Amino acid sequence: MSTLDREIVATTEDVDRRLAAAAGAADEWGQWKPRRRADALSAVADALDARSAELVAAAMQETGLAEARLVGEMKRTTVQLRMFADLLRDGSYLRVVIDRHDPEFVLGPRPDLRRWLIPVGPVLVFAASNFPFAFSVAGGDTASALAAGCPVLVKTHPGHPETSRRTAEIVRSALAGNGAPEGTFDVIAGKEAGVQALRDPRVSAAAFTGSVAGGRALFDIAASRPTPIPFYGELGSINPTVVTLEATRERGAQIAEGFVGSFTLGAGQFCTKPGVLLLPNDTDIPDQLIKLVADVPPARLLTAAIAERYQERTDQLAQVPGVRALVTGGQVAHPSGVPAVTPTLFHAGSVQNLYRHRDVLLEENFGPSAVLAQYDSDDDIVRILTAVEGTLTVTVHTSETPGPAEQDRLTRLLDLAAKRSGRIVFNQWPTGVSVTPAQQHGGPYPATTAVSHTSVGTAAVERFLRPVTYQNAPDDLLPPALREDNPWRLPRTVNEPGQAQRWH
Amino acid sequence: MSTLDREIVATTEDVDRRLAAAAGAADEWGQWKPRRRADALSAVADALDARSAELVAAAMQETGLAEARLVGEMKRTTVQLRMFADLLRDGSYLRVVIDRHDPEFVLGPRPDLRRWLIPVGPVLVFAASNFPFAFSVAGGDTASALAAGCPVLVKTHPGHPETSRRTAEIVRSALAGNGAPEGTFDVIAGKEAGVQALRDPRVSAAAFTGSVAGGRALFDIAASRPTPIPFYGELGSINPTVVTLEATRERGAQIAEGFVGSFTLGAGQFCTKPGVLLLPNDTDIPDQLIKLVADVPPARLLTAAIAERYQERTDQLAQVPGVRALVTGGQVAHPSGVPAVTPTLFHAGSVQNLYRHRDVLLEENFGPSAVLAQYDSDDDIVRILTAVEGTLTVTVHTSETPGPAEQDRLTRLLDLAAKRSGRIVFNQWPTGVSVTPAQQHGGPYPATTAVSHTSVGTAAVERFLRPVTYQNAPDDLLPPALREDNPWRLPRTVNEPGQAQRWH
Repeated sequence: MSTLDREIVATTEDVDRRLAAAAGAADEWGQWKPRRRADALSAVADALDARSAELVAAAMQETGLAEARLVGEMKRTTVQLRMFADLLRDGSYLRVVIDRHDPEFVLGPRPDLRRWLIPVGPVLVFAASNFPFAFSVAGGDTASALAAGCPVLVKTHPGHPETSRRTAEIVRSALAGNGAPEGTFDVIAGKEAGVQALRDPRVSAAAFTGSVAGGRALFDIAASRPTPIPFYGELGSINPTVVTLEATRERGAQIAEGFVGSFTLGAGQFCTKPGVLLLPNDTDIPDQLIKLVADVPPARLLTAAIAERYQERTDQLAQVPGVRALVTGGQVAHPSGVPAVTPTLFHAGSVQNLYRHRDVLLEENFGPSAVLAQYDSDDDIVRILTAVEGTLTVTVHTSETPGPAEQDRLTRLLDLAAKRSGRIVFNQWPTGVSVTPAQQHGGPYPATTAVSHTSVGTAAVERFLRPVTYQNAPDDLLPPALREDNPWRLPRTVNEPGQAQRWH
Repeated sequence: MSTLDREIVATTEDVDRRLAAAAGAADEWGQWKPRRRADALSAVADALDARSAELVAAAMQETGLAEARLVGEMKRTTVQLRMFADLLRDGSYLRVVIDRHDPEFVLGPRPDLRRWLIPVGPVLVFAASNFPFAFSVAGGDTASALAAGCPVLVKTHPGHPETSRRTAEIVRSALAGNGAPEGTFDVIAGKEAGVQALRDPRVSAAAFTGSVAGGRALFDIAASRPTPIPFYGELGSINPTVVTLEATRERGAQIAEGFVGSFTLGAGQFCTKPGVLLLPNDTDIPDQLIKLVADVPPARLLTAAIAERYQERTDQLAQVPGVRALVTGGQVAHPSGVPAVTPTLFHAGSVQNLYRHRDVLLEENFGPSAVLAQYDSDDDIVRILTAVEGTLTVTVHTSETPGPAEQDRLTRLLDLAAKRSGRIVFNQWPTGVSVTPAQQHGGPYPATTAVSHTSVGTAAVERFLRPVTYQNAPDDLLPPALREDNPWRLPRTVNEPGQAQRWH
């Protein structure tokens, strides 16, 4: 069964009609009291939970992902909807600041100024292949944009059309059941439909999770519009992992197991897959890795297109001079028609060789392959981390309680890691991204196209908000969030007169 | 005297050397404790104050702006440096969030996660023509980027080269005197030099204040780099003003005076100049405006290029069918060689005509000209506000205490105003932007290229920061901002275990 032929591509008129509905819904949905939107998001979570068995079954068939993984992903999806609902109930995300009228302000009388954040308008979400729930129709981008008060139009991924259709129906119906205006949420399918929507003036922002090539093409469209819009793209990431000599001595076997588990998890189809491993020269971990990798059973890839691209990129890596395959994975047929594969592990030959061929070896290969190299010195590590482009994560394995010498050596490495990435992981693995307020899922280009933002965690809502200030407004004409009696009971910062005297 | 021939354009090598120095300074400047950077910014403010007489004299000669205005602008510049210094001393701008390890987290064990904001890296600032201090070498973009911990390279404006050079010398020397690494701050001159720097991989973000054409060209360069960077451009704004019938009856003469004062302030060379005035049909304010505008004395424009462009645009407006000049301004010679002008006031003929020719009439004309139109109904106002592109401000003059009927009619108008702008001004004028935490100086394109940000007020620092999360880090390896004992004494949000139980 091919999944692709079941996708019903949106016509030009479909896209236009849905965008008109989204634009029509923007005022009402955006002006709801946050607690009312919170209740609607909670209702969406409940509705998805109520039909999770059916959704998981559809996704299993379409993606080949295991049931346990999909059940977990569905839970993540509903938990994050509830997390955003709580963010709305708290209200501090609106960042209300009131500067009171100050006739003695140092630069001349300061008027009463009241600032808060409002929704940017309709958001276009491009769903991902590898998370049929959590980065798809009702995933984090959708949840955060709806939370912000923006209508959402999702361009579904062709890898799981039936899952997408059913999820969409549940979301639409739960929103409608809670009084959300028609057009608050909808989906379209088809590449051309996505591009048409991205070019449309009614779309105010877009979010994307996918490949560097696809994401960059869409980013370029968003930036070259007559009215450019923000494009929050999460593209590709190599996620380098560095292991200190002390760590290999302390728990080499555990590190070997953890690495293989992480890079082959979900058939290596995670944006946080550790793609490059830097080990000291003096370790037998490579031998352990060979054994462990050889034991990993075949796993189906998500789509035929991903399988094809993975084969091409893996062949390309194998042909790099000096690179040798420690384990060469294979393909086996799978009833779905999309092949299953076993993992491939390359040795770069040397750090010098890894650096020399960095354009190929330090670029993401989506699927269960990884490259290891062995370093002689800290300079070798620095050289590679400097050559790495923007990445979602850098992982460092150190001894559990690093002594002063190890710490000293790590300092330079960690400075570099912060420059290159959005998250630095210690003695754990980058796959498995916790959905929580302090999470950062982002990083310098090409990890993302917007380094100041995250697509996981509550801070994701900030992508879809913009500030508006009211100056000297009669109280009755202010939005409720800014009124003197604070009817929405929002947390707020109030700056009284006299604040600026110290700035003379 | 032409000012242009005194600008010393940077060579390719100059630009390269300064960028290398900026990149070299980024680690140290960015890793300073915020309070230490605060002291350096305060020192810059003190040094500018100490030499303000000399700087004001240079700026008077180069820009033709009046002494009182320039003294005030210098004060604004040093006040805003001190305001950012205080922001650094407070530390909440770093937005530290700590999620503690939670073995019972609803989605599986949550690791210890600690998030804060770090500087993006070297920032390129394009200085503006119309604010030789506040939006120039030591202006808001520079102050906010330095505060964030980013080295700054300013591309100076050719309209005030000597002022720029002297300001730069003072800033550089005050920073060096406070131990800032070489390369923390520098300037370059010349259009080509600016483009070269914008294309350079060592530049991480850019800020710009200027024209739509110039800003868009630079935005396009920033977006089309192999590694795109954020470009915070403030381009052009029409700043519509709407006056209700009730307001005209209550204080028509005061509104007429206020409008003329605002649109001719600084020879109309403010990005917040109210360029379009919507009056009810039933008012004699137009007659009052004619008298007031005719009395405005000539004022020198900033540069010959601005004068030329202003003449072209004003001629273009005059030639729009149905438009008539209520007052036709003139040009008089000025010893500087840059002409002085008297203001021009157009009547659009009708709201219908204003709408029909919106591409010309609703586009910014930088200089002392404005267009008025008279409406019959609220629908007329809505039509024009809908046709207006993104704008920094919308101003509304209402009666001092609007009754229910006036409020009802205003609601739709204010919703539209929030969609179109970043600041809504009531019964005051948009020129004169208060530098204060609740300020918002931004708006949808083309007002700015980044609607979620401001270039005035403390929130401007957010443009130059990005989040990094540390997962499961040994305390000794964390940056001081995230360590358990909080050595920098930063305000922080700590999420204890158990938080997620309600998300089930």
